[in-house]
Amino acid sequence: MADSNSEVTFAIVEHYGVLATESSGWTKEFNLVSWNQREAKYDIRSWAPDKKKMRRGITLTGLECDTLKRLLNRHPLASSASNTSNGTPVQISQS
Amino acid sequence: MADSNSEVTFAIVEHYGVLATESSGWTKEFNLVSWNQREAKYDIRSWAPDKKKMRRGITLTGLECDTLKRLLNRHPLASSASNTSNGTPVQISQS
Repeated sequence: MADSNSEVTFAIVEHYGVLATESSGWTKEFNLVSWNQREAKYDIRSWAPDKKKMRRGITLTGLECDTLKRLLNRHPLASSASNTSNGTPVQISQS
Repeated sequence: MADSNSEVTFAIVEHYGVLATESSGWTKEFNLVSWNQREAKYDIRSWAPDKKKMRRGITLTGLECDTLKRLLNRHPLASSASNTSNGTPVQISQS
């Protein structure tokens, strides 16, 4: 994505679906998006109802999506992601 | 995530897998992460090799992950995400 003071152009090449809808109307979506006329990438982020604003999200190549799909299919998902305890808390300061 | 001047604590509760590895050693990963001692959420982002730094990414609830899994399984993925043309470019300025 271009630096924050320049213009960002995007084209939602393919809308695959909505993962969640907030009360504000914003939607977390899975799309294929071309940013700044570059090659389109898979894209997970939240969008304003009029698509004029979006939040930071993540882009994935086709291969990364493929790997993610296999991981999602392999691991049973807790519908309410619960803390299954084997992580050791790490402190980092973002100064 | 806390504002940028305060401390962020996290625990990688479950490491599901690596989606990509950069030449720098950074890895884009799918994990279950508890941020600031809150309930763990599914998490896709890039991490430094020593896990001391990470980039912005996206968190997903179990339900959102479930929906994403169904979308990924339903749509054939282009291994190299290619621009399939039906998006109309939109210009937004991030000033």
